[in-house]
Amino acid sequence: MLQSKLFPGSLKENPKDEVSVSAKYLIRAGFIDKLMAGVYTILPLGWKVLHKIEDIIREEMDAIDGQEVLMPSLSPQENWRKTADRLNKIDVLFEARGANKESRRRNDATYVLSCTHEDIITPLAKKMKFSYKDFPLALYQIQAKFRNEARAKSGILRGREFRMKDLYSFHRSPEGLKKFYEKSKGAYANVFERLGIGADTHITLASGGDFTKDYSHEFQTECEAGEDLVFKVKSSGVCYNREITPSQASEFKVKEGLKEMELVKGEGVISVQELIKFLKIDIERTTKTLVYETDQGDFLLVAIRGDYEINEEKLCKVAGVERIWLAEAKKVKKLTGAEVGYIGVLNVPKKVKLFMDDSLRGRVNFEAGANKTNYHAVNVNFGRDLEEPKEFYDIKTAKEGDIFPETGEKYEVFKGSEVGNIFPLNTKFSEAFDYRYTDKDGSKKIVYMGSYGIGSTRAMGVIVEKLHDDKGIIWPEAVAPFKVHLISIGENEKAQELYEKLQTKGVEVLFDDRDMSPGGKFAEADLIGCPYRVVISAKTLEKGKIEVKKRNDDKIEFLNEEELLSKIK
Amino acid sequence: MLQSKLFPGSLKENPKDEVSVSAKYLIRAGFIDKLMAGVYTILPLGWKVLHKIEDIIREEMDAIDGQEVLMPSLSPQENWRKTADRLNKIDVLFEARGANKESRRRNDATYVLSCTHEDIITPLAKKMKFSYKDFPLALYQIQAKFRNEARAKSGILRGREFRMKDLYSFHRSPEGLKKFYEKSKGAYANVFERLGIGADTHITLASGGDFTKDYSHEFQTECEAGEDLVFKVKSSGVCYNREITPSQASEFKVKEGLKEMELVKGEGVISVQELIKFLKIDIERTTKTLVYETDQGDFLLVAIRGDYEINEEKLCKVAGVERIWLAEAKKVKKLTGAEVGYIGVLNVPKKVKLFMDDSLRGRVNFEAGANKTNYHAVNVNFGRDLEEPKEFYDIKTAKEGDIFPETGEKYEVFKGSEVGNIFPLNTKFSEAFDYRYTDKDGSKKIVYMGSYGIGSTRAMGVIVEKLHDDKGIIWPEAVAPFKVHLISIGENEKAQELYEKLQTKGVEVLFDDRDMSPGGKFAEADLIGCPYRVVISAKTLEKGKIEVKKRNDDKIEFLNEEELLSKIK
Repeated sequence: MLQSKLFPGSLKENPKDEVSVSAKYLIRAGFIDKLMAGVYTILPLGWKVLHKIEDIIREEMDAIDGQEVLMPSLSPQENWRKTADRLNKIDVLFEARGANKESRRRNDATYVLSCTHEDIITPLAKKMKFSYKDFPLALYQIQAKFRNEARAKSGILRGREFRMKDLYSFHRSPEGLKKFYEKSKGAYANVFERLGIGADTHITLASGGDFTKDYSHEFQTECEAGEDLVFKVKSSGVCYNREITPSQASEFKVKEGLKEMELVKGEGVISVQELIKFLKIDIERTTKTLVYETDQGDFLLVAIRGDYEINEEKLCKVAGVERIWLAEAKKVKKLTGAEVGYIGVLNVPKKVKLFMDDSLRGRVNFEAGANKTNYHAVNVNFGRDLEEPKEFYDIKTAKEGDIFPETGEKYEVFKGSEVGNIFPLNTKFSEAFDYRYTDKDGSKKIVYMGSYGIGSTRAMGVIVEKLHDDKGIIWPEAVAPFKVHLISIGENEKAQELYEKLQTKGVEVLFDDRDMSPGGKFAEADLIGCPYRVVISAKTLEKGKIEVKKRNDDKIEFLNEEELLSKIK
Repeated sequence: MLQSKLFPGSLKENPKDEVSVSAKYLIRAGFIDKLMAGVYTILPLGWKVLHKIEDIIREEMDAIDGQEVLMPSLSPQENWRKTADRLNKIDVLFEARGANKESRRRNDATYVLSCTHEDIITPLAKKMKFSYKDFPLALYQIQAKFRNEARAKSGILRGREFRMKDLYSFHRSPEGLKKFYEKSKGAYANVFERLGIGADTHITLASGGDFTKDYSHEFQTECEAGEDLVFKVKSSGVCYNREITPSQASEFKVKEGLKEMELVKGEGVISVQELIKFLKIDIERTTKTLVYETDQGDFLLVAIRGDYEINEEKLCKVAGVERIWLAEAKKVKKLTGAEVGYIGVLNVPKKVKLFMDDSLRGRVNFEAGANKTNYHAVNVNFGRDLEEPKEFYDIKTAKEGDIFPETGEKYEVFKGSEVGNIFPLNTKFSEAFDYRYTDKDGSKKIVYMGSYGIGSTRAMGVIVEKLHDDKGIIWPEAVAPFKVHLISIGENEKAQELYEKLQTKGVEVLFDDRDMSPGGKFAEADLIGCPYRVVISAKTLEKGKIEVKKRNDDKIEFLNEEELLSKIK
């Protein structure tokens, strides 16, 4: 490709409305363009990279017997109602309908614009495959997905429209699913290895959602722009997504004797931040207490140290319920006698179930709501002012400094960007669509499913997050837009010859044939980030040499043409 | 690929809810699946074909210096308002927004779901390229498009979601546009030639819409399932889309003397069909008269022979106006004194401009409205009952039997499916976005644009429409899902060997390894339509031979392995 013809060419400055390094570099170097928040055009350089990324994904999916299909983005609302009303439950779901009166007059249907395809592929597979002989089956596609994100500000790391590979697998048994699921981990590791981010990408345990009591698995690439927090157990290498990290609070130690409990009037002092200012105490002395209602009709009084947040998923598991929600203020008052904001672990009514997080263990002289409006109790102590519970629970969202309960070691914590995820869906969708197969003995048995995603546009962004320096991008060879960036300094004819020779040999070359200063050309080559920079100038040609430099290496070599070709091939 | 593993395999019967041959075969053979009206999943076999079709398109677009990009499907409404309010004018436009309350609460924006990308690419190009040195520029993409079609019942020939290549070109002058436009015709011809439908695909003149007073060009493949009617001038080979075909009516000859004009009372007799029954006359004797209002504030009284329809686009041109619409009944009554349905070319008020189609010329004793409610005039004659106009016009929609005015020859008429189209957009979009470049002399000049589409999913359907027999599809080699369909009859081991050998040599093979009757396997091979059927059975192996048959040839050959390999390579 002649750089003089390349659309659009580089911009002079970083875009002002982007925060992530990847978006800044990809826009400035002309790989992508922002159409609006969360929605980007892939430009010619970007398309070359994305195409290579997606072909690598293809190869690895084919290698585990995935068959490629292409499902539509439009789908019937009906399908999304059948799956426990995901039509109304998925809070990022888009719909499509006629954009104006005349369009709606012609066809007034409303469709779902899919963000995932379990709700489409399950009935498709059901229609086609129903004998035990038909399994295992794995189908995948690569296409645009649509998510109505509340905020979209990380460039192509989180978009409202983005490209994704999604694979769905179908099995006769949990064992069959498990076997394929493990195989997919290998395929995913290969993908990220080939994309050049393998070393920084960690298999991370995450919530199984309502699909499974087991974990699902995320592939988290350690990077500053990542939106997830990953907790790593150093001794074993096991990583947890923050949302499910088993956590023991760091100890809050104070050496002091028990003080007398007092009720302090603090009208309107409700939040933890207000409380520590008002009472002039460490946040670790405060106690956060909330009342939840459950789908079993119970009330839970839940308490946690003031510097933590309650993790509702953990709480559900501990309480053995499916769904919880914060009780209305009226109900809280009726139950505890106090307004929300003054409830606490003192004077707890008999009717509620009490759950205390382990962060409360071992404290002395702490603060707690007294279930008396406008009052806070200070210098509260277990054993004296209230009974110490038989069991403390882990119902908090982990934070930096927390301890892995099993070994007592402090977690290593890093930000991660989720480039892939795999879910054991088990029978959630096959139950919803009543997808059963006929076994050898003629009996009908439920199908087990898994789903497996890789965001290809996000992966492109993550590669840049990981592989760049202050001059620009450093593409790994496998996905570089061009292998060689050929630069001519006043010697276009000779460069043109080499350009053609390299192309004849199947080498992808971007040839900077423009009439520009060498410095400008070098800066742009560094920004774009092709693996080899090859310079042809009168000075080097005199000596029969060509200048070669790898993007990720400072060493400059002077080679003759033969040496150059053998180096690059 | 092992056929025993292929998803989903063939169906036993044609689908009942499809009318086009292509949809029937593609669904039955397992290339596509219908999700809902106008929306199809591309299955593994179909994806292999579509991928090849799109790669052929890619190669030809690259050859005319097209650079591939990928624009998003979501776009801001604002862009579509700027282009003369296409947001409200495009009657197939879709919009996307949150699908449920929670989604809309998170982000309540509404986006356009694009059916074309002029409204996106013009501001993109404007942002990047503005010097005379930057042109010509050609950008293309291949992606899903969305059209809210009123009815969608032709399988993948017309979908609500379909895949398309769209290229946009940018030029400094009308001449630059013209030059590229002509080059694109060659690229398009190459594409359709390589897809195996070149001989049946005709460049067809079509309306330039509001982009240009010149024609645009459609690539119409002659086929029964086509939705367009193409009129071909045999002597020159020039083809016209029906909507703009210059047409002279076939003559309606009767030998009879002039009869006396009569007013016949026919209350409620309004449509042409009612009229010919009521008056017992040939349809060619009737006259259809309508009153239009124009954007110039005029009224047009327009008359045409009863067997024709008025073509509003032609009428606009003839009347020299931009926009017309049927006048309201009230206004018609006020103007002519008669209710709609009884107006005609007799007693025409002075205030209207009269336009008569050439189909009225030369008739005797014809019927016409008399501008008197409930009455129809019969045996009307020019010269006696009304003045013969100085000029008759061509303001009709052409129909079979019509004559090409220039040469007097009768058109050859065929149904066509529009697999491609190219538009000289000229300055419509550059004006809308004020896209100007800086010329050598520093002056600002408007950019000229063209747009160029090929429907890749439609092309797949059209190939099947053209290339099939009563047993199934006959894929051309360039886009066949597999080159060889290898069938084993009780000799799986030997077949497996050949399967592997062929694959090693880079031949794509579908290997029917299933335990099934030979008849069933042959029928399925014919249905799927790979170019070569290779059969391995004990009977032929005895003689050291392998049976080979081309899908489009009845001849069966018996070759040894070496001969087979050289035939297939």
